[in-house]
Amino acid sequence: MARPSDVADLVARARRGEQRAVAQLLSLVETDTLAGRSLLREVAAALAPHAGRAHVVGLTGPPGVGKSTSTSALVTALRRRGRRVGVLAVDPSSPFSGGALLGDRVRMGEHATDDAVFIRSMASRGRLGGLAWSTPQALRVLDAAGCDVVLVETVGVGQSEVEIVALADTTVVLLAPGMGDGVQAAKAGILEVADVLAVNKADRDGAVRTARDLEQAVEMSTGDDAGWVRPVVTMAAIRGEGVDELVAALDQHRAWLDDTGQRARRRRRRAAAEIEALTLERVRVRIGDLDGAGGLADLADRVVAGELDPYRAADELVGSVDSRATARA
Amino acid sequence: MARPSDVADLVARARRGEQRAVAQLLSLVETDTLAGRSLLREVAAALAPHAGRAHVVGLTGPPGVGKSTSTSALVTALRRRGRRVGVLAVDPSSPFSGGALLGDRVRMGEHATDDAVFIRSMASRGRLGGLAWSTPQALRVLDAAGCDVVLVETVGVGQSEVEIVALADTTVVLLAPGMGDGVQAAKAGILEVADVLAVNKADRDGAVRTARDLEQAVEMSTGDDAGWVRPVVTMAAIRGEGVDELVAALDQHRAWLDDTGQRARRRRRRAAAEIEALTLERVRVRIGDLDGAGGLADLADRVVAGELDPYRAADELVGSVDSRATARA
Repeated sequence: MARPSDVADLVARARRGEQRAVAQLLSLVETDTLAGRSLLREVAAALAPHAGRAHVVGLTGPPGVGKSTSTSALVTALRRRGRRVGVLAVDPSSPFSGGALLGDRVRMGEHATDDAVFIRSMASRGRLGGLAWSTPQALRVLDAAGCDVVLVETVGVGQSEVEIVALADTTVVLLAPGMGDGVQAAKAGILEVADVLAVNKADRDGAVRTARDLEQAVEMSTGDDAGWVRPVVTMAAIRGEGVDELVAALDQHRAWLDDTGQRARRRRRRAAAEIEALTLERVRVRIGDLDGAGGLADLADRVVAGELDPYRAADELVGSVDSRATARA
Repeated sequence: MARPSDVADLVARARRGEQRAVAQLLSLVETDTLAGRSLLREVAAALAPHAGRAHVVGLTGPPGVGKSTSTSALVTALRRRGRRVGVLAVDPSSPFSGGALLGDRVRMGEHATDDAVFIRSMASRGRLGGLAWSTPQALRVLDAAGCDVVLVETVGVGQSEVEIVALADTTVVLLAPGMGDGVQAAKAGILEVADVLAVNKADRDGAVRTARDLEQAVEMSTGDDAGWVRPVVTMAAIRGEGVDELVAALDQHRAWLDDTGQRARRRRRRAAAEIEALTLERVRVRIGDLDGAGGLADLADRVVAGELDPYRAADELVGSVDSRATARA
């Protein structure tokens, strides 16, 4: 593990695009030990001035829709345009985290030797479908490393979509024929989180219908999208078809974000969410440190016994946390 | 809206099983206005001594798997056994919340006139797939109303599964042939949350294979289930087939929970999670009350500008929240 004094050097080397330094920094921000925490803070401080440039693109969708294949095809298309690309895969079915078939691995393997592609799988730390806690810092590492685009691929189930929206400048929701038509997508709340919709496996039966359903659903939905008309792209990522259209849609959205000031707004919202989450995490740690009467376990027992309602229990817990803060002040 | 003085009376009437009183209490706990908050607390205090008896059964699964139909069939089967049943539907595709086809409505309609069935749809408050904030209190209302079983139906996407596990004594994950075989289910993290697996639409092609895949996946998975062997039930809920087997599986799990002390353990964990969530919500409100320098918006701006990293920003925010607590103490 790097010593604190190495951090500035690592960041400098990462900024020059050295794969090894980037990999080490990514490992550092993934560290979740007490010893690692102070290093993590040091890395965060060193990265802060160098982030905010990359276009962060979230890819999500139901399992089996071809997210890994689409990610790989997008990397190929972006590299053809000379862009530096980062990939963060927090999908348990992703080839990067070892959950997928060998065929996928080999397919992504072509990028593994490309010096301008940075690939990292993130453990989701046992959180079902969720993004890893360290994902925002990992994004900053790839951003500082000069990535023009960072693709964040995550399994699309519920909460992770909300989280990817909080993280990404542009969110792509991938669907496939027969996996969910427009109505199902609307039911699952998929439409609201999408900036761009892509129907993959367009060579399969029903692709045209799925795309048309989605277009209709998009027309009827009223998103918080400030005038952006969400495009529906059809593609067959495995054969590279429609991928250029997807890149074009991403570029258009990025331009729209910049032109309208939405990008800055999203980034502020993202930073606020991250700061709030870190703050609440500290309160959670404080709660965990309390024991005995007035501690969480004691209060939970009293709620289960019917002696206390949860609101009063929360009153007591807030009081306990506050007196800790007061004692410290 | 009920005046505070009415609350004790409402709870007494709900305990006698009066549909109208139960409905009013459910409306009260769903209230999310400032005026409603104090009533909500009053209701919580009045309910506290009367809850903890009902068997809380969570039903989840991907959209389109037939959750509403299965819920309805379960209600029928439970009523046939003379049990009082509560239904909380937090699924946007549920007939109760108006998202489904007329056929579903009519089908559930049969229970609407049954005095021993209490049905409520909960708005999910814009949270994608998530359970409503007020769900735990709504459970207590139905529990106090003498329900033997409360079915909590929620759209099964990611976080909501985690939440339903926190809420339910027994979690049923519904799947259907072709919607996700064992591998996909494992990928999506579905297996870990299930106490009972049910393959619905068993009349369709592939049902046997799906059930077998699940059984194999269950055998290979290592859940935190303390010795419970998760059964896989096949059923065709729309024709009432296999529903008795599902009821039997639920009863077995309930007996197992009681015999092993797991039920008390789950209830304590559930209460702890609820108290912690209420406590963190208060901290969030305090954060929202801060403005100007050191407030969240200011800190987010400084993080976006690269002047500050999010960890230092959280330090500052914790400091601001604490000084508020200190000033109040």
